[in-house]
Amino acid sequence: MGSKNKNGEIEENSCRNPDGTLRLRNRNIEHLQEDILYHLALGTESHDLVKMFGDVKFVCMGGTANRMKHLAQYLKTEMNFELPTGTSLCDLTENSHRFSMYKVGPILCVNHGMGVPSIGILLHEITKLMYHAKAKNPIFFRIGTCGGIGLKEGTVIVSKSAVDEMGNAYHTQKICGKVVQRPAKLDHQLVKDLISLKKSDDKFNVVEGITMCADDFYEGQGRTDGAFCDHTEEDKFNYLKELQNRGVTNIEMEAVAFAAFTHYAGIKAALINVALVNRLNGDQVTTPKEVLLEWQNHPQIIVGRYIKQILCKN
Amino acid sequence: MGSKNKNGEIEENSCRNPDGTLRLRNRNIEHLQEDILYHLALGTESHDLVKMFGDVKFVCMGGTANRMKHLAQYLKTEMNFELPTGTSLCDLTENSHRFSMYKVGPILCVNHGMGVPSIGILLHEITKLMYHAKAKNPIFFRIGTCGGIGLKEGTVIVSKSAVDEMGNAYHTQKICGKVVQRPAKLDHQLVKDLISLKKSDDKFNVVEGITMCADDFYEGQGRTDGAFCDHTEEDKFNYLKELQNRGVTNIEMEAVAFAAFTHYAGIKAALINVALVNRLNGDQVTTPKEVLLEWQNHPQIIVGRYIKQILCKN
Repeated sequence: MGSKNKNGEIEENSCRNPDGTLRLRNRNIEHLQEDILYHLALGTESHDLVKMFGDVKFVCMGGTANRMKHLAQYLKTEMNFELPTGTSLCDLTENSHRFSMYKVGPILCVNHGMGVPSIGILLHEITKLMYHAKAKNPIFFRIGTCGGIGLKEGTVIVSKSAVDEMGNAYHTQKICGKVVQRPAKLDHQLVKDLISLKKSDDKFNVVEGITMCADDFYEGQGRTDGAFCDHTEEDKFNYLKELQNRGVTNIEMEAVAFAAFTHYAGIKAALINVALVNRLNGDQVTTPKEVLLEWQNHPQIIVGRYIKQILCKN
Repeated sequence: MGSKNKNGEIEENSCRNPDGTLRLRNRNIEHLQEDILYHLALGTESHDLVKMFGDVKFVCMGGTANRMKHLAQYLKTEMNFELPTGTSLCDLTENSHRFSMYKVGPILCVNHGMGVPSIGILLHEITKLMYHAKAKNPIFFRIGTCGGIGLKEGTVIVSKSAVDEMGNAYHTQKICGKVVQRPAKLDHQLVKDLISLKKSDDKFNVVEGITMCADDFYEGQGRTDGAFCDHTEEDKFNYLKELQNRGVTNIEMEAVAFAAFTHYAGIKAALINVALVNRLNGDQVTTPKEVLLEWQNHPQIIVGRYIKQILCKN
């Protein structure tokens, strides 16, 4: 990051300034009179983004608005952040009607909806937000839910890599009629750091794994309980076994885009998912909602410990 | 629909029973002891789906929960549906934390989030819901927002067909490691019926068009204002012009999956979008929110007239 070429100039492709603020891989943004982050209902003219978000060090993303609000409240308690009397956390992107975002000290918690296109919109706008805000070296987390392959329900999987439905370790996009592939790479040191935070008395396991990203919950994950099913139980098991043989531990719907985007943007990032079902045992999520909600706390606990450790060092 | 083969049996591929209730292209569902519609927080054992949803004739889908609540309230007023004293519309899928769904008489209004994977989850579960509820001949609408190509902002586009980012008139999925393509076809009579409902004193135009479905809002639609931009303004204009030459009128993020799914399911369906920006003039959505919200009413007005017409006939 911030590497210099032989003339001593910062290279075009570099994604970070020497002070840790982001450089975008898009010079057009510098020349915009106003940048409206449409799906966040924030903008460079309408808001003082530096004042509002300049201190952000961590961006935590997850599927539902509800879970992100819960995460913000959990982190507030864990970090002993006190709010002024008469105030409570509010949704910073309420006017967008698209995403919900909460801020607790230097931590943003924002939901990304379901699937690659939805998280893609958020990643573009959150990255531009961090750029406009002059936030320094922000770390992105996706804290999600997934189906595990051969793992006990409630297990937390920290992804060392991400693959698509065909096993490719890159994200494929179509841009102006051309097919573009970007490698889906994650930070290996961050994976190790997160896994090391498991405590011996935790009631759940934390493992590293390879995460498959599907574009569909039903047919795209081999499920046989969608509105359509042209494949057999045998096709499903062969597919899941093939994935398992390649080291795939879990399936969700955002990993490959999240990994490719953050890698291309030069942003340190991690994917931490909890398995709600063992796909080798079935397709349906039959566990009671209160147990599911309890399991959804597991990745939050690990990420909370990581953030606390970093903040205590500074 | 309900066609019989030479032995007089209803064919495997038929999607409708003689009474108009749906037949699923998945026999597994008949044999499930319980079917949990996970992202709707509804299930065949926990809810009396026939009683709750058996009368549904129209399913209206749109991106945001807010817009769908507004639509439900609008249709309630338009259709003169009265609620019992002391009651108000409630979100039927509140416990899912994923989608929001409102019911007004025989009309469901439910949000689908952003992008193909998100609407795909909803389509699987709503179709299974209609099947379990024994709803008869339900019609699906997607009432959305889009970018227009050469159209005035506020124009309503009723799609006669849908294409992907490469111009293919089919939806491509990966199922158990195989590439599957399903034609993205829409009901041409329904397109004509909807367009005919424009009134001469409407303040907006209603046109038929070809809708491109992108998997991304920024690079995938040729925008030059994302966090990344490796293409030029010229690349963008060449791409938009090429689309326009092929008859593409507008770009959004769900069309091809919606058209392919409903066609494969044998469900009559229409895509009605309003253009919030003319992409030939720019990328950013700079129009004030209150004007955008006003424009978002345009497709609701047309669909409201259609539903009213059908209900008055019966």
